Amino acid sequence: MKLLSSIDNPQDLRKLQRSDLDELARELREFIISIVAEHGGHLGASLGTVELTVALHYIYQTPNDLLVWDVGHQAYGHKILTERREQFHTNRKLHGLSGFPKRAESEYDTFGVGHSSTSISAALGMALADKLQKKQRQHVAVIGDAAMQAGMAFEALNHAGTAGTNLTVVLNDNCMSIDPSVGALNQFLKSSVDRYRSEPNRIYDQLERAFAGKPQPDSNLFEDLHFSYFGPIDGHDIELLNHVFEKTQQLEGPKLIHVITKKGKGYEPAETGNPTKWHAPGIFDAATGKVLKKEKPGEKAPKFQDVFGQSLVELAHQNEKLVGITPAMPTGSSLTFMMDEFPQRTFDVGIAEQHAVTLAAGMATQGLLPVVAIYSTFLQRAYDQLIHDVAIQNLKVIFCIDRAGLVGADGPTHHGAYDIAYSRCIPNLIIAAPRNEHELRNLLYTAQLDEVKQSFLIRYPRGRGSLIDWKNDFEKVEIGKGEILKDGERVAVLSIGTTSRLVEKALTETKHNPTHADMRFVKPLDTALIDDLAKDHKVFITVEDGAKKGGFGSAVAEYVAEHHPGIRVKILGIPDEVIEHGTQEELYSVIGSNPATIRTQIDNAFTP
Amino acid sequence: MKLLSSIDNPQDLRKLQRSDLDELARELREFIISIVAEHGGHLGASLGTVELTVALHYIYQTPNDLLVWDVGHQAYGHKILTERREQFHTNRKLHGLSGFPKRAESEYDTFGVGHSSTSISAALGMALADKLQKKQRQHVAVIGDAAMQAGMAFEALNHAGTAGTNLTVVLNDNCMSIDPSVGALNQFLKSSVDRYRSEPNRIYDQLERAFAGKPQPDSNLFEDLHFSYFGPIDGHDIELLNHVFEKTQQLEGPKLIHVITKKGKGYEPAETGNPTKWHAPGIFDAATGKVLKKEKPGEKAPKFQDVFGQSLVELAHQNEKLVGITPAMPTGSSLTFMMDEFPQRTFDVGIAEQHAVTLAAGMATQGLLPVVAIYSTFLQRAYDQLIHDVAIQNLKVIFCIDRAGLVGADGPTHHGAYDIAYSRCIPNLIIAAPRNEHELRNLLYTAQLDEVKQSFLIRYPRGRGSLIDWKNDFEKVEIGKGEILKDGERVAVLSIGTTSRLVEKALTETKHNPTHADMRFVKPLDTALIDDLAKDHKVFITVEDGAKKGGFGSAVAEYVAEHHPGIRVKILGIPDEVIEHGTQEELYSVIGSNPATIRTQIDNAFTP
Repeated sequence: MKLLSSIDNPQDLRKLQRSDLDELARELREFIISIVAEHGGHLGASLGTVELTVALHYIYQTPNDLLVWDVGHQAYGHKILTERREQFHTNRKLHGLSGFPKRAESEYDTFGVGHSSTSISAALGMALADKLQKKQRQHVAVIGDAAMQAGMAFEALNHAGTAGTNLTVVLNDNCMSIDPSVGALNQFLKSSVDRYRSEPNRIYDQLERAFAGKPQPDSNLFEDLHFSYFGPIDGHDIELLNHVFEKTQQLEGPKLIHVITKKGKGYEPAETGNPTKWHAPGIFDAATGKVLKKEKPGEKAPKFQDVFGQSLVELAHQNEKLVGITPAMPTGSSLTFMMDEFPQRTFDVGIAEQHAVTLAAGMATQGLLPVVAIYSTFLQRAYDQLIHDVAIQNLKVIFCIDRAGLVGADGPTHHGAYDIAYSRCIPNLIIAAPRNEHELRNLLYTAQLDEVKQSFLIRYPRGRGSLIDWKNDFEKVEIGKGEILKDGERVAVLSIGTTSRLVEKALTETKHNPTHADMRFVKPLDTALIDDLAKDHKVFITVEDGAKKGGFGSAVAEYVAEHHPGIRVKILGIPDEVIEHGTQEELYSVIGSNPATIRTQIDNAFTP
Repeated sequence: MKLLSSIDNPQDLRKLQRSDLDELARELREFIISIVAEHGGHLGASLGTVELTVALHYIYQTPNDLLVWDVGHQAYGHKILTERREQFHTNRKLHGLSGFPKRAESEYDTFGVGHSSTSISAALGMALADKLQKKQRQHVAVIGDAAMQAGMAFEALNHAGTAGTNLTVVLNDNCMSIDPSVGALNQFLKSSVDRYRSEPNRIYDQLERAFAGKPQPDSNLFEDLHFSYFGPIDGHDIELLNHVFEKTQQLEGPKLIHVITKKGKGYEPAETGNPTKWHAPGIFDAATGKVLKKEKPGEKAPKFQDVFGQSLVELAHQNEKLVGITPAMPTGSSLTFMMDEFPQRTFDVGIAEQHAVTLAAGMATQGLLPVVAIYSTFLQRAYDQLIHDVAIQNLKVIFCIDRAGLVGADGPTHHGAYDIAYSRCIPNLIIAAPRNEHELRNLLYTAQLDEVKQSFLIRYPRGRGSLIDWKNDFEKVEIGKGEILKDGERVAVLSIGTTSRLVEKALTETKHNPTHADMRFVKPLDTALIDDLAKDHKVFITVEDGAKKGGFGSAVAEYVAEHHPGIRVKILGIPDEVIEHGTQEELYSVIGSNPATIRTQIDNAFTP
């Protein structure tokens, strides 16, 4: 690490000779591999952008020039070269570096990211602000091919094409989302690469024409949107990247530079292995590429996502109306099980949450029953479609909402904090959360029954359930019915979803004897059960892994405040602030929703 | 109306000779003008699609073939030709026809619309469902050039390009949103029209090549996305449209037909006048085109949107950091005032809500203070951006949320019912609603002060305020402070925004003496005021023009249920169901939030 250890920031980098940059890239790659192997994190994307990162910071005068990384999985090299090498081992840990670029962390992180496809809008906003304020500098968005598919990237291109700035968009094309990229844009990019493979000098010709003000010989969709298009070029050739960045920053108007990279580049196990696996491989042996600490099946309770994925396949065998849809999350949601078994009935539409939900609504009009597999935080992207295309029309779609609650290391951009609150206000929806794997299976089974006429949201967290023997026979759940798990007195703890486990733990530790009910449904709320509990309880404590404002506890408070004034309602859940990253356990302690704090709340309720 | 009166449905239409179709179009246009002149509604878009509508229903075998209209402003001709001619005068009235296609209304309305850019996703969903279920028929989405800019349309094109269906997209290009279209796509479409103006036979050549399996001589962005592109063609030439639809439906794969129409076509005042004005002109004299019943300035209290628009200009003179952004709503939001005064500081980004919000966040990082002028219902489209790009980063953006509450004739797709609930759960936001024009001005003034560090949402309804003398001197409002408007006893009515007026009316009619507080802020909630009121009141009645679940009343209930058990909270607002269209007054009566029902609630609270 002779070179890398001398580089604290891009000013240091820019003192290197150009001939040293390849060696620096080698060291940077080795450093990333060693840290990620030991501490975990995202690997493939950052390995693919090592040369690109070096070239960007070598040519552009960061931090004065403004560089916006899209999503940020690929920005580890950027973090290491911008004053964070020494802390990089704290990546994604509580109080450590964020796994994504983050404004509070560094002036080099111009925009906080995590969700895809925001970079062009953000960089254009910066460019327009500088134009108004008469600041001359470069504005560069680095966006992947999968992120480019999402609608908001197109909206930004459409605006940027006529906005009168010198915005540069670097399209980092590795043909991958977390799963392989899909869709027509991807095909078009691939065909461009194939077409110009035999013309390595094309880029020099493009530059020459651009400087001469001559049109390019071929047009394409980016040029139709008024971007000057350069590429495709090899994204692992630092010398070429330097040349292209040096030249294009002298050109007026919006520019798109199409750069071809390979996920996992330079690390043989990742480069030749399954890129989805190497997106975020967990802890592994850097020398051999052997991934460590994987349990064998049956040793632990399964992940909720796998219970969903496998249960959906069972149901799809029985109910031929079921189809699966996911916006670029087949592996993350385990819709891959359905994809393997019923490829014709499973649709990965790419990073296109809005389209995914309205596509589902369109299918529902023709008698299919779509199951949309999506993360809580990404459903935010399809919020209008949930209201306008599904709920208002009362079309039946099943939403399996994964990563609900605090997700852990991915942090604030990925926490599934808001889904209860944002969906509870929408009519024609049933909203439920299972406390364990059996309940998840039963809710999914119930949701797909013909007798259930409304859209059905089932939310469950990242991670494992609690039952090793998870595969029960499907059983119908009565809609809107909770369940008393423990009869007690005076204080009733009302939980939703897997917070039930926290409560059960708390109950083993208190000397008091409260009641515990798993309410199961946020909507319709089991008001009959609340009426019953109201007869002989004085305090309700609600527990949820969602935002307190407007969430499940709020639903209980609305009902109780009108119908049972006199009962105190104490709401536990995610407070009204941005919750940072850490392990899930650490974070639930931070917000005061672990068994110990729940126990304290119970004890307090008994001794007012 | 010789021909039109004989046509109840497309089967009747298809019995006509082709030579009769121009005359039918003339009659249909005349019918639309006469009804809209008398009853109001959207005019320009539907006049532009008369020939297109006739040709679509003449060639495609509706309702078996599935036709999806985007937005639906342009679908009046469609409604009239599909069994709704006799009811058409009830358009947009309570219990009458919806102003938009609506599934519950007709089997010809295959998909409910209102928000833009959903049609391709929906039609693709239908096509994929039919493919799975082995149904052979045509699937046609009709989408405007402005709607095509929105991200979700691009997401749908990207998927459709490789989805293996025979989807037809008819791009109805009239170079207009409600305001003139903006952006690079629009420029590209215009340049295509200019380029091929001199080649009227181009379409025949395109068709010939397509049937011969030969590539087209020029490529473009639609072809890059694997659509076969046909056009541009004259959208007022029924014979040509018929020919193109007949031929293209025989071709495999996704097709895009680029059709040029003129908003207001065939009605001289609309065709030659301001197309934004003629989008929805109100009541007018059909013979002269003179718009009736417009008041002179000063006769009535102003519209909230105009108070916003004019006040923003005043503030922009004082605060040079202020910039205005709107996604295609400059006229509707009255951001036009800012656009006229500060064209360089005002951005209409087209129908691109997601981009608008992240663009604002990008600008905010560089020290500007963006004001996003947007309707409540359209902010749903940028929900993730509000959370991910604004709130999590704690960047300061002012959101002026117009059309909050029930909007009236536009109906369920446009009601601003959810914004309080969907924003209340998000950290780092201040959420306020003015009860009148002075308060709106003061809140806007306060929001832009440097000392206010957080994003600020100001929501106000469609329509007029209550003060003819609206232009007060700006005054700072204390953040999170409500105001007692009337001191009383036992029952406290807590209102937010303009529902204050309803409460004041109710108070004049009850014989009881309740307290009335305008809470002003949904967040931070004035808990000190609630604590005070809790001392000597037994019942709180909350009144809001938003969804009851999770809204303002819910915020009060959460606080009261924890801190003041014993006080009953009765929440009045929009119930958990889809509210249809009608006048605003009619709809607030329907939901039980008019002065009479509020009075009843007050009286009930006094006599438990």
